Amino acid sequence: MKNLQKLFNPKSIAIVGASPKNEKLGYILARNILSGGWRGKLYYVNPKYSRNKSAYLANLNEIRKPVDLVLVVIPAPFVNQAIEEATLARPKIENFVVISAGFKEIGKEGQKLEEGLENIAKKHKLNILGPNCLGFINPSQKLNATFTQPQFKKNGFGQASGKFKPGKIAIVSQSGALAVALLDWTQNLSVGFSKVISIGNKAALDECDILNFLAADKKTEAVALYLEDIKDGQKFAETAGKIASQKPLIVIKAGKNRAGQKAISSHTGSLAQDEGILEAIFEKLNIVEAKTIEEFQNLILYLNADKIPAKKEIIILTNAGGPGVLASDFIGNSKSLKLLKIPSGMKVELKKYLPGSASVENPIDIIGDAAPERYKNTLKIISRKFAANPLLVILTPQSQTDPENVARILKAYKRKFPAFAAVFMGGAKVKTAAESLRQNGIANFENPEEALSAIEKLAKYNLQKKKAGFIFRQKDIQLKLKTNAIIQSVIQEKRKMLFWSETEKIFKSYGIRLANSISFENLSGINLKKITYPRVLKTDDPKIIHRWDKKAVFLGIQNEKGFRHAFQKIKKTTGAGKFLAQPMAKPGLGMIVGLKRDWSFGPVIVVGWGGTYTEIFKDRVILVPPLTADEIKNQLQKLKIFPILSGFRGEKKYNLDEIAKIVLALQEIVAENPDVDQIDINPVLLYNNGSKYQILDAKIYF
Amino acid sequence: MKNLQKLFNPKSIAIVGASPKNEKLGYILARNILSGGWRGKLYYVNPKYSRNKSAYLANLNEIRKPVDLVLVVIPAPFVNQAIEEATLARPKIENFVVISAGFKEIGKEGQKLEEGLENIAKKHKLNILGPNCLGFINPSQKLNATFTQPQFKKNGFGQASGKFKPGKIAIVSQSGALAVALLDWTQNLSVGFSKVISIGNKAALDECDILNFLAADKKTEAVALYLEDIKDGQKFAETAGKIASQKPLIVIKAGKNRAGQKAISSHTGSLAQDEGILEAIFEKLNIVEAKTIEEFQNLILYLNADKIPAKKEIIILTNAGGPGVLASDFIGNSKSLKLLKIPSGMKVELKKYLPGSASVENPIDIIGDAAPERYKNTLKIISRKFAANPLLVILTPQSQTDPENVARILKAYKRKFPAFAAVFMGGAKVKTAAESLRQNGIANFENPEEALSAIEKLAKYNLQKKKAGFIFRQKDIQLKLKTNAIIQSVIQEKRKMLFWSETEKIFKSYGIRLANSISFENLSGINLKKITYPRVLKTDDPKIIHRWDKKAVFLGIQNEKGFRHAFQKIKKTTGAGKFLAQPMAKPGLGMIVGLKRDWSFGPVIVVGWGGTYTEIFKDRVILVPPLTADEIKNQLQKLKIFPILSGFRGEKKYNLDEIAKIVLALQEIVAENPDVDQIDINPVLLYNNGSKYQILDAKIYF
Repeated sequence: MKNLQKLFNPKSIAIVGASPKNEKLGYILARNILSGGWRGKLYYVNPKYSRNKSAYLANLNEIRKPVDLVLVVIPAPFVNQAIEEATLARPKIENFVVISAGFKEIGKEGQKLEEGLENIAKKHKLNILGPNCLGFINPSQKLNATFTQPQFKKNGFGQASGKFKPGKIAIVSQSGALAVALLDWTQNLSVGFSKVISIGNKAALDECDILNFLAADKKTEAVALYLEDIKDGQKFAETAGKIASQKPLIVIKAGKNRAGQKAISSHTGSLAQDEGILEAIFEKLNIVEAKTIEEFQNLILYLNADKIPAKKEIIILTNAGGPGVLASDFIGNSKSLKLLKIPSGMKVELKKYLPGSASVENPIDIIGDAAPERYKNTLKIISRKFAANPLLVILTPQSQTDPENVARILKAYKRKFPAFAAVFMGGAKVKTAAESLRQNGIANFENPEEALSAIEKLAKYNLQKKKAGFIFRQKDIQLKLKTNAIIQSVIQEKRKMLFWSETEKIFKSYGIRLANSISFENLSGINLKKITYPRVLKTDDPKIIHRWDKKAVFLGIQNEKGFRHAFQKIKKTTGAGKFLAQPMAKPGLGMIVGLKRDWSFGPVIVVGWGGTYTEIFKDRVILVPPLTADEIKNQLQKLKIFPILSGFRGEKKYNLDEIAKIVLALQEIVAENPDVDQIDINPVLLYNNGSKYQILDAKIYF
Repeated sequence: MKNLQKLFNPKSIAIVGASPKNEKLGYILARNILSGGWRGKLYYVNPKYSRNKSAYLANLNEIRKPVDLVLVVIPAPFVNQAIEEATLARPKIENFVVISAGFKEIGKEGQKLEEGLENIAKKHKLNILGPNCLGFINPSQKLNATFTQPQFKKNGFGQASGKFKPGKIAIVSQSGALAVALLDWTQNLSVGFSKVISIGNKAALDECDILNFLAADKKTEAVALYLEDIKDGQKFAETAGKIASQKPLIVIKAGKNRAGQKAISSHTGSLAQDEGILEAIFEKLNIVEAKTIEEFQNLILYLNADKIPAKKEIIILTNAGGPGVLASDFIGNSKSLKLLKIPSGMKVELKKYLPGSASVENPIDIIGDAAPERYKNTLKIISRKFAANPLLVILTPQSQTDPENVARILKAYKRKFPAFAAVFMGGAKVKTAAESLRQNGIANFENPEEALSAIEKLAKYNLQKKKAGFIFRQKDIQLKLKTNAIIQSVIQEKRKMLFWSETEKIFKSYGIRLANSISFENLSGINLKKITYPRVLKTDDPKIIHRWDKKAVFLGIQNEKGFRHAFQKIKKTTGAGKFLAQPMAKPGLGMIVGLKRDWSFGPVIVVGWGGTYTEIFKDRVILVPPLTADEIKNQLQKLKIFPILSGFRGEKKYNLDEIAKIVLALQEIVAENPDVDQIDINPVLLYNNGSKYQILDAKIYF
């Protein structure tokens, strides 16, 4: 793990590319650092202005004192050389932020420069943030090492100083522009942050290095991360899982079509598409996923002001019926939130203070003509018993409402309710009140749905918190020699898929039983007299993937004559050289169980409804190893056909332990056989009459 | 249709309950009317203050001139009497707005008063808006007949006068509080409106009367409607369909669990739940449905400034990569929008003005350091060819950006692009620019997703516009005597379901053929020698609904012995008195086709995938009569199993005309047989080998 303490908390900074011209980034950077209030030693490096004992130095080597951080803003083609030279400085310089653009993002030439930069970082063990980034901000150090700055007061908007407000959320962004917009947005809403870090092209330091740093950062209580690509899924999962077990990690992932996909040939492949995998991984790691910028912002807004909701029973207090109904509708559809049932004793108490037409059911509706006193009395009563529950206070500005006084009352109750949000709906009439809520650290949303969506996601996070989420780690692979020997011999033959008999051996050593079958190449290689009927004949030829489409399967063969006929027919149509004869299985519930190695995150296992309609309904759940039997059975509840598995309309239920056992075996196979890339079991027939499962088809690819 | 011209454009108004005390609604109303700038004759009615030649009258009858509108703000128990008295005034008073609360919303006592009010309206043919409403605003008449008022200037916020801004959108709200919040919100954003109408409890005038008025109102180009309940689905559909064919009708429907539901006993019932029906009806009528308050507001924001997008190919121009990616992600998932492909000639032209690292693909990314000039040049080039396409301009405030000058440039191009929206992301730095966009009539959104969601919904609306949407009308029913005779005799027997033989006769007269079956009551009533095997035996007893669960079906009976055994077994287990013997059908694709009368909207038809998994996957489409064969076949494309219907993996396709024919027959049956309440056809087996469909089970309920 890299030590980034000095990089983000430097006592001395050098700007390579500093400039006295106020349109240059080298000037803007220095101005921002100075006006932000940082108190450290600042060096300006620019050979152009270094003559005549000016404040400018020609080279970093001239500084004979420690330089904790170098900010680089010279044109891209000169960056690598400058950093290489800097490694000669004594004491050694270890931390760089390359703000300069003109790297990977401009095409081939830039790509080359960026590879050079990456190599320099590795060779000299340097921490380099960027290139093509905004820099970073550390408000607790009053350090603004970016080329953006708070808006100074103008037309009544903006701040009096160049300082950003300290807070408890760290913002990490792969888009500099988005970071600029978010920063500007936080200013308007009195939202502070612990760090803002723009990671740019991630040539050396990536999101994982930054997350590792923030996991240990005491000032950071939550992290909000904008990502366009995940460089190394395994590394990301390890870091993200760790941080999410300590503090909420909010991620918005843009760019839904990830590159690097292998062509999809197997059923498992088509069932486990990218977006689904990412969602499953995020869920496993307890990452709070924001689907839109607005959700991202609302989560930040809430966490800036509140604790994570400790309970799922929410209380809603409103002076407006309509918005109350909309809030109820939202909660009615939510899995992680529900409306607290107000106890009857409390209802009696509430009725004392409220008019007859008010509703003391939740949402508590103190109706349109509510003066501030009604809010106060209600909050007082609720707070006695339910201060630990999430609370949402809704207001619309009727003529009797007095939003500013209600805001004052909320301020007094903010201490009592750790998870407390407001929705003051409107515009001009609620502006001053909303401003006062913000200044008193109360999160105020524009409408009930936005507030509830943030609360819901954090309530869900809370359910899993403390349980460190992690996924299967490629580096933990332990080679199993016996099965590996089979696979290696197949690889030498340049096959990409195992024959049935080979698959059978491997599965057997992991406790999976395939349907009783006879493998043979021609009719003389099989004892036809010993075969029972009805029977199935199909090819076992790796070249024929969709056997059904290729007419390479015959079902319900009744006798030897039919068997011979089927054999000749398949041989003639497909030219296959390998065959498989199976007894006809009794009809059962056909399931598919498959494994796929995601190119970035590693293995995922898919369980779904099998048969003809597999790819039509895509009824499947993506399971992320490592898995326990309980976790597998739990996840199976997400299947649409779960009601059938658990006994539909008085039918007997199926044995979920059987599926769990197969899934556990697959995760062992993948952990001990690094060459295995995909496994397709389709179908495995399940029975609810006590019969054991039947696997009719199974393929291992690599 | 009611004439509401005078109600909403009065030349004379009387306030019943006017008051000199400034905390009373009667005072606030008068103040709002006067400060709003309305120039008509205003009468104050209140017997308490009518002595000594004051401005107050004791009674409406004292006014011997025309009173176009009466606003009632006296306590609820006195309202009905006051209106009854007012009917004695000459010239006749016809229009009332009852602002007073204390009716249906407070329980039984209020309900009684409200029924009285409704009766008075009917008896005297009066137009009464409310009760329990906010009143209405007509900005073009400078008339604010509500007890809310614009925020006056204070701390720099609000307006200089009591006038609301005129605009082209009408807001209709069943929640007064929500109307207040919306009005206040519009002020902050320079959004105007043609009318704001609060409909309250809808005792006499309901949403349909108001929509009818707004359909003809030339000042109104779009209607935004907040609804909690739909009083009469048939009437609503007729009105809404008419208005939507002329101007966009945006509806947000709160309160998802509608009352009045019949118990669900049939398959069709469970497949056609309320929310699904509402969605299907809205789609049929081309209503633009907003799912959240935010969507509702964003649609208003867009329509306030723009024309409905005439094309689905959108152009996105951005100085920020991240938000551009998020916009692409959104459009990638959209059915109604796509990214315009920039022609190569235009790309060459754009490249002349843009730096090398800019992207001339759509989204056009003019990158982070873009000065206003770059926006200008790009817009100039695009406008030559694509001014008719929707355009979205994204900006984040980097140090080089100058949002205010970009806003100035956008102002100049606003005329050229009729569907033009901006997303200036941030807070303090974009505040002045955003303000200037608003004042120049450019819709500015907080993030790309919100803007695109509004544009998408309106682009979808545009595709269906002009085509008047309407649904089946109960009042158009024409009794078919022949089938009705069968039904009437069954009703006399107090049965709720037809026997197979009766269903067969009715279906036959509409061209639907049931599977060849023999109905009988005991073995002596059937010629056992003439029966072919394999055969199915089941009950035809209305008491046994889920035959399969009750073990009232035997499949694959091979001979007479088996037939007798099955008969005795079913008789013993179920006590059934009616039986049905059918030949075993060849396996086919099992579908369900059903009909259900929604208690409010009338009949809907459901087509879905049948069999064991029907209720598990709920793969169905809800069709709203009247339907044509083409419309039915079009809608079937929404089924998940549509790929199978249309030929999956080289299989032959199924004959969709057969399903269309059955659906068309059902809609005829329901139109000609008012007692038919539900029809279940489950399964109808379809074949893709040229065989005709087989209906194995069909039930008619009433």
